Amino acid sequence: MTSPIVHQPDARLDLVLERILDVPPELVWRAWTTPSILKKWFTPAPWTTIDCEVDLRPGGVFRTMMRSPEGEEFPNAGCYLEIVPNRKLVWTNALEPGYRPAQRSVARPGVEFSFTAVISLEPSGSGTKYTALVMHGDEEGRNQHEAMGFHDGWGKALDQLLALVRQPR
Amino acid sequence: MTSPIVHQPDARLDLVLERILDVPPELVWRAWTTPSILKKWFTPAPWTTIDCEVDLRPGGVFRTMMRSPEGEEFPNAGCYLEIVPNRKLVWTNALEPGYRPAQRSVARPGVEFSFTAVISLEPSGSGTKYTALVMHGDEEGRNQHEAMGFHDGWGKALDQLLALVRQPR
Repeated sequence: MTSPIVHQPDARLDLVLERILDVPPELVWRAWTTPSILKKWFTPAPWTTIDCEVDLRPGGVFRTMMRSPEGEEFPNAGCYLEIVPNRKLVWTNALEPGYRPAQRSVARPGVEFSFTAVISLEPSGSGTKYTALVMHGDEEGRNQHEAMGFHDGWGKALDQLLALVRQPR
Repeated sequence: MTSPIVHQPDARLDLVLERILDVPPELVWRAWTTPSILKKWFTPAPWTTIDCEVDLRPGGVFRTMMRSPEGEEFPNAGCYLEIVPNRKLVWTNALEPGYRPAQRSVARPGVEFSFTAVISLEPSGSGTKYTALVMHGDEEGRNQHEAMGFHDGWGKALDQLLALVRQPR
């Protein structure tokens, strides 16, 4: 097999969140791939993630159910594409579990656009260089995602992740 | 890593071509993954495949350019998802190379619907049990693909593949 794909961000189509975290990649990885942990940080409060399913293999399901402060529920389902433990996690909502293309004709509540997320974790001292690259198919999707508060939302969720994994266990 | 996904065909959404071939999996695999060979069989005559690009890794490009008998050209680009040499090849046009979701807002000439193809090659005596499972996101896509002549087209292309790999070299 040849070397893995290197992802080149495209400013016109992509959104990127990059930060140096003071926790090691292993803890971030666990928070991203363990449903009971993910539910506690994945959605910026006062939104909550009330359900989560993780089948950590290519084509396996990544499903979450978010709940708005008003009690409205928003299901999201996609599948994993690449899994490099403690280093790289790629998933998309453009494909359903098993790689089936997501249905196009029905507007999906909550998420009206498709994206692929590449979560990269690179050791940095005793911490992690964290990069979330979110790729869209067109500018409309990118801009809609940005307007929904991508930077604030993904940043706040990451703060929640950190607060959680820093807790003494 | 856990075991690979097992694909369950859904008659409502999928199209399947299954045949026992009298050539071994290795020859079929080579015909599917070598551009110079693929160009000779991929489109049922009098259509032709005038260009082909293969980057055989997850997220790598699978691109073809078909030409109609009238000289009209139809580009198709997608990416590979799973590669198990001589056994299983999974690719989709729902994602562009690098896993970027395909653009939704622009009708793509030639292919108006998304699909994921799972080509399975299972040794069967000295030959191959060949299964092409083509998954769609909705019935509309499946039915459109069927009406375009899926069974006849994929079957005829497979005949061309066989005629080609049976040739003495």
